[in-house]
Amino acid sequence: MGGTGAVGRALGARLAATGVPVLLGSRDAARAQEAAQGMEGGPAGPVEGAANEQVVERSDVVVLAVPFAGVGPLLESFEPLWRPGALALDVTVPLRFEGGRPVLEMPPEGSAAEHLRARLPERVRLAAALKTIPAHALGALEMPLECDTFVCGDSPEATRRAMDVLARIPSLRPVDVGGLEAARALEHMTWLAVRINKRHKVRMARFRVVGL
Amino acid sequence: MGGTGAVGRALGARLAATGVPVLLGSRDAARAQEAAQGMEGGPAGPVEGAANEQVVERSDVVVLAVPFAGVGPLLESFEPLWRPGALALDVTVPLRFEGGRPVLEMPPEGSAAEHLRARLPERVRLAAALKTIPAHALGALEMPLECDTFVCGDSPEATRRAMDVLARIPSLRPVDVGGLEAARALEHMTWLAVRINKRHKVRMARFRVVGL
Repeated sequence: MGGTGAVGRALGARLAATGVPVLLGSRDAARAQEAAQGMEGGPAGPVEGAANEQVVERSDVVVLAVPFAGVGPLLESFEPLWRPGALALDVTVPLRFEGGRPVLEMPPEGSAAEHLRARLPERVRLAAALKTIPAHALGALEMPLECDTFVCGDSPEATRRAMDVLARIPSLRPVDVGGLEAARALEHMTWLAVRINKRHKVRMARFRVVGL
Repeated sequence: MGGTGAVGRALGARLAATGVPVLLGSRDAARAQEAAQGMEGGPAGPVEGAANEQVVERSDVVVLAVPFAGVGPLLESFEPLWRPGALALDVTVPLRFEGGRPVLEMPPEGSAAEHLRARLPERVRLAAALKTIPAHALGALEMPLECDTFVCGDSPEATRRAMDVLARIPSLRPVDVGGLEAARALEHMTWLAVRINKRHKVRMARFRVVGL
């Protein structure tokens, strides 16, 4: 998995705490190693850091915890590196801020997830998840998440594999929402959560489905 | 308020139970009167039925509980009837079904709510709410909703007035999500809720915000 940003480190720590071996990625291997060593909470599983390319070469599940704006060129450079059957997990949202207000800028494919699918090699499967959970909430490691994560994928198998990984995190319920096009709703929900956070001066607004 | 369909009747019954006077609308006044008489649950407030035009003329808050497909021509015919300062409450979603699958067909304005705003006279205020709550759940009058309703409006005052009405319904929390453009997210969430209902064979999937 990858990403030394807030989401990557938080998710890495939460997964490592469940015993999953975690490999943090960065453009700069030294920085990734530093982030891995500084990981909070004394993870149960091993945490290492490496350059992004190595993370992709070595991992069966690669979390694309990078800003949406930079993900296209990154995927291009990763193209030859993926293991056959690897699962990419997209957590990106095409949000930018304009005078402090969140603006959702959907790519022509309809969602960030579909945009990434169009840029991944055939041998890689793609699922999308965690889009609606704020980095602040993921990063508050002592806090139970007590929310749902909506999971969609380019195949039922991709969705199932992502759900299996995410189900390890306590008090996070993965909810299967079908094909990748569902990400259109999920990315709108992130935008809504940011609006709610700003308007109500909170930082961790997230969603739970009632009646399921 | 208006609509003898599932949503209109359910919302009418839930509001009448809190003592709000309810006027149910239909193209056919006799049908509206029949629906009002047949209202379940022995409402605390008076419930009457009338032709749509009369409902618009007589009401300070008009719930547009009609199918999205028919709302344009309806608003055209209502144009001269609105009271100055009336609040229209939009609960529509531009969903259609294709071989049993829900398809969201956003109008060029970006959302149903913005589409309606463009067709309402200046003297009418517009808020949108209840979009993400399934008619089945609204209609299960014995069941506490235990969820949130996201409310947005063309002005802070419109949002506040809609929230004041909705806050009367027990165990329903109105959440202010700002301007009318928020409906883009809300209508996507309805589409997601329908997908969840179908995939998980439930009928009442709805949302609650955690961390607020």
